[in-house]
Amino acid sequence: MRLMSAVTFTLLSAVICCSLTEKLPNASPPNIIIMLMDDMGWGDLGVFGQPSKETPNLDAMAAQGMLLPNFYTANPLCSPSRAALLTGRLPVRNGFYTTNGHARNAYTPQEIVGGISKDEILLPQMLKKKGYVSKIVGKWHLGHRPQYLPLKNGFDEWFGAPNCHFGPYNGSIRPNIPVYNNSEMLGRYYEEFTINRKTGESNLTQIYLMEGLDFILRQTKDRRPFFLYWAPDATHAPVYASKRFLGKSQRGRYGDAVMELDYSVGQILSWLRTFGIENNTFVFFTSDNGAALVSGPKGGGSNGPFLCGKQTTFEGGMREPAIAWWPGHIKEGSVNFQLANVMDLFTTSLALAGINPPDDRILDGLDLTPVLLDRPHTLQNRPIFYYRGNELMAVRLGQYKAHYWTWTNSWEELKNGINFCPGQEVPDVTTHEQKEHTQQPIIFHLGQDPGEKFPISVLTKEYQNVLSMISPVVEQHKKTMVPGIPQLNMCDMAVMTKELQTLHNLLKLFIQDLTTWVKKVSVSFLL
Amino acid sequence: MRLMSAVTFTLLSAVICCSLTEKLPNASPPNIIIMLMDDMGWGDLGVFGQPSKETPNLDAMAAQGMLLPNFYTANPLCSPSRAALLTGRLPVRNGFYTTNGHARNAYTPQEIVGGISKDEILLPQMLKKKGYVSKIVGKWHLGHRPQYLPLKNGFDEWFGAPNCHFGPYNGSIRPNIPVYNNSEMLGRYYEEFTINRKTGESNLTQIYLMEGLDFILRQTKDRRPFFLYWAPDATHAPVYASKRFLGKSQRGRYGDAVMELDYSVGQILSWLRTFGIENNTFVFFTSDNGAALVSGPKGGGSNGPFLCGKQTTFEGGMREPAIAWWPGHIKEGSVNFQLANVMDLFTTSLALAGINPPDDRILDGLDLTPVLLDRPHTLQNRPIFYYRGNELMAVRLGQYKAHYWTWTNSWEELKNGINFCPGQEVPDVTTHEQKEHTQQPIIFHLGQDPGEKFPISVLTKEYQNVLSMISPVVEQHKKTMVPGIPQLNMCDMAVMTKELQTLHNLLKLFIQDLTTWVKKVSVSFLL
Repeated sequence: MRLMSAVTFTLLSAVICCSLTEKLPNASPPNIIIMLMDDMGWGDLGVFGQPSKETPNLDAMAAQGMLLPNFYTANPLCSPSRAALLTGRLPVRNGFYTTNGHARNAYTPQEIVGGISKDEILLPQMLKKKGYVSKIVGKWHLGHRPQYLPLKNGFDEWFGAPNCHFGPYNGSIRPNIPVYNNSEMLGRYYEEFTINRKTGESNLTQIYLMEGLDFILRQTKDRRPFFLYWAPDATHAPVYASKRFLGKSQRGRYGDAVMELDYSVGQILSWLRTFGIENNTFVFFTSDNGAALVSGPKGGGSNGPFLCGKQTTFEGGMREPAIAWWPGHIKEGSVNFQLANVMDLFTTSLALAGINPPDDRILDGLDLTPVLLDRPHTLQNRPIFYYRGNELMAVRLGQYKAHYWTWTNSWEELKNGINFCPGQEVPDVTTHEQKEHTQQPIIFHLGQDPGEKFPISVLTKEYQNVLSMISPVVEQHKKTMVPGIPQLNMCDMAVMTKELQTLHNLLKLFIQDLTTWVKKVSVSFLL
Repeated sequence: MRLMSAVTFTLLSAVICCSLTEKLPNASPPNIIIMLMDDMGWGDLGVFGQPSKETPNLDAMAAQGMLLPNFYTANPLCSPSRAALLTGRLPVRNGFYTTNGHARNAYTPQEIVGGISKDEILLPQMLKKKGYVSKIVGKWHLGHRPQYLPLKNGFDEWFGAPNCHFGPYNGSIRPNIPVYNNSEMLGRYYEEFTINRKTGESNLTQIYLMEGLDFILRQTKDRRPFFLYWAPDATHAPVYASKRFLGKSQRGRYGDAVMELDYSVGQILSWLRTFGIENNTFVFFTSDNGAALVSGPKGGGSNGPFLCGKQTTFEGGMREPAIAWWPGHIKEGSVNFQLANVMDLFTTSLALAGINPPDDRILDGLDLTPVLLDRPHTLQNRPIFYYRGNELMAVRLGQYKAHYWTWTNSWEELKNGINFCPGQEVPDVTTHEQKEHTQQPIIFHLGQDPGEKFPISVLTKEYQNVLSMISPVVEQHKKTMVPGIPQLNMCDMAVMTKELQTLHNLLKLFIQDLTTWVKKVSVSFLL
């Protein structure tokens, strides 16, 4: 339905952009594009060593911009990671976690009633101060009830879905996920927006590309600064790709999806150049968490040399591919080893836009502009915190990482074939029970041992030195941590289906009426 | 002693080269440089995803040339791998293996009396036909007894050692390894050629760089085509680097060694340009076997996403970093997925030199020039054979790899802390007993599963298809295989020490005299 052909689109845009490029000076502040992949791993990019080398556009993006090999997410799961990116705050602060169990990962499946708290300030809300128009294309995942949706949270436009494309479901009990254009529901995944589970064919990435390009084109025409949050979900299982890419990869269907996303990134960058706005558009590419090894090898990606994957606080769960691109501003082909994370994108975007960050709350994101723009600076010796739900599992400081708790998943899950670390086993590290090491953390040197396979002996001076360096950082962090109210504690099957919701609402009204009646009666009795 | 300062060298060469570049046309045939690293892993290069990205010169070499992600060695151990490179033949054919045990890896430690057979034809011998001058710089490893040394096997020059830089040893029982300049022994490792085991400091790589540059300079001046086999051994444990690089890497001492080798590669390429011979010099960079994970993390490298390391027939043991470079001939920034191996370097070098390969023996190397020079060709669907000693352990054909035998090392070795697959464990695959799967090989799809973690179910059609494709290839290979006489079967402690050697020689002379006397006496008796 939204598939205007690429050719038409190209011709149309060419006409518009050519007149634009002549008149448009490099406006300030810059446009901002954050490209957030779904479950794509660090090792999925050619530039990060994927043996098939099937990401020429991303590799070129790195060659034209800056590669950040030490970039992290804030959580090894999608919803909290995305909440952290848009708020600049750890999930344990912004409420995107659960206290239902210790160190439990939580997200927003259809039965979760929570969502992003109204007390949180999201990046698009802030960017409004400088006249930015904001759009999210793709997966939202910060709550699917009406009050939590993107247009209620600072975005001016939305094309995509509140949840992941799980399914297809039987609509009578559990409906398929809706797809929205702004506040209008256009249809549902597997119904109006087809994903063929058997062949893996779907043109969703193509649609998301078109939506992104269309938004860029309109804002460029209107000469308004824009923020595009481009969040396609093709590499989340069940993986899909459009016909043109299916069967083209050496890596199977997952690789096909990567190739289509790589192509789309290339298209977006190329159109920025065509529109003549490349020198005024900051683009950042990353992913929401590590590759889901549990879906591998056909439905999951690669974390390169790192340990384990999504759901874990090992490097494979939280180290992300990251490329910053801004011709004329970011030095071509640079590599920067600053420890950084998705929350920095909040603070950095504000800095680029010339907006002061909110001063009424703790922010976990740093302003990376000195690093990105090669201004005089020293690498900040800032820690990376690895959380699972309500527990601080590990901390990285410099090259060292200390694990205070280790856990992959339960023995029970493992016995059922759910394995977050297939083929990997590090004694006392990839544990299947929640193992506490707070008295004597397991410490790795990630420079020498990026795969977290050789714990530093506690008997060495090195271990003691590291511990005395990291301990005060952890103490300070814990002492000053005020957890937000957990938003992902409550489940309710009733919120999922229209039919059940109606029943639920009727029941609620009946109970309210009953309560009112009981109160009235009680009062009359008391009188 | 051979350390003329880099500055002097630069000035001297600048004078010579500038006059050279004016006069020299692009001569034919091209010079050939093979850079063979020692125990460097696929994952040690930035371009192959090493997170520290500390190989800017190798990454630039790849950007200016061709990257071959599917390049293999012929054996997971140094000596056989090097023998295969120089003969173009599998070790099981050229005799660089042992039958002392099943699937036993063998090399040439000091007590091995064998070496490269006089029946083998080595690359420099062939290149002589077109007037090439050949030099080996660094590690030889094809036998240390006089008849096996490089100058007896086609090389015109040699600077380096017959063996690895193990040690230091107590000279009275086991002498340190000698360092030769051609046939003159200059001294020994740890003595005249210092390697500080405590600090890791040694200027050996610097010396090897100078020796390489000096050779290139002289041949360029003399306008003779040359073959330089540049084989430094700094990344073999115990790893070393010169003062300038020590402590500079994010990866520890191993990374320091990699940085110095990377620098040296950069220097060589840069000097080829300075000399104006870059368009007439084919350069190939690779390594002799996978990273020695057993020496990790401080003394061993990385095999990126691949399984296990040196000594094994998993991808980590035999997949090698590989870059081909030849400005004006090899397309810049190209990536080619042809399955290739070190034995192809023999055949390819001959093709580049315009020499017909020997037709009296089976060669395992292919001529890669159509691939490298982007001439019309189709990727050859040739198999890769993974041998351990006398056993064909596995075969790769296309994306599929079938394991007929699996073995890492013995339980006994493992219990003693020798682990070729630290942190990795794939049931039934990384076995500690020699496990036969010839009736039902374990098959992996290396495109989808480069880490060999998800065996394809034997119940699938895919498995049956692959098996029916690979089986005839294996049968044919085995049927036509005529193993060479194993050269690495015999050990003799006596050949190691000068004292014992003298005694041994005296004894030999005495026996010869005795034999002659016996013969004479017998003859006189018969007459």
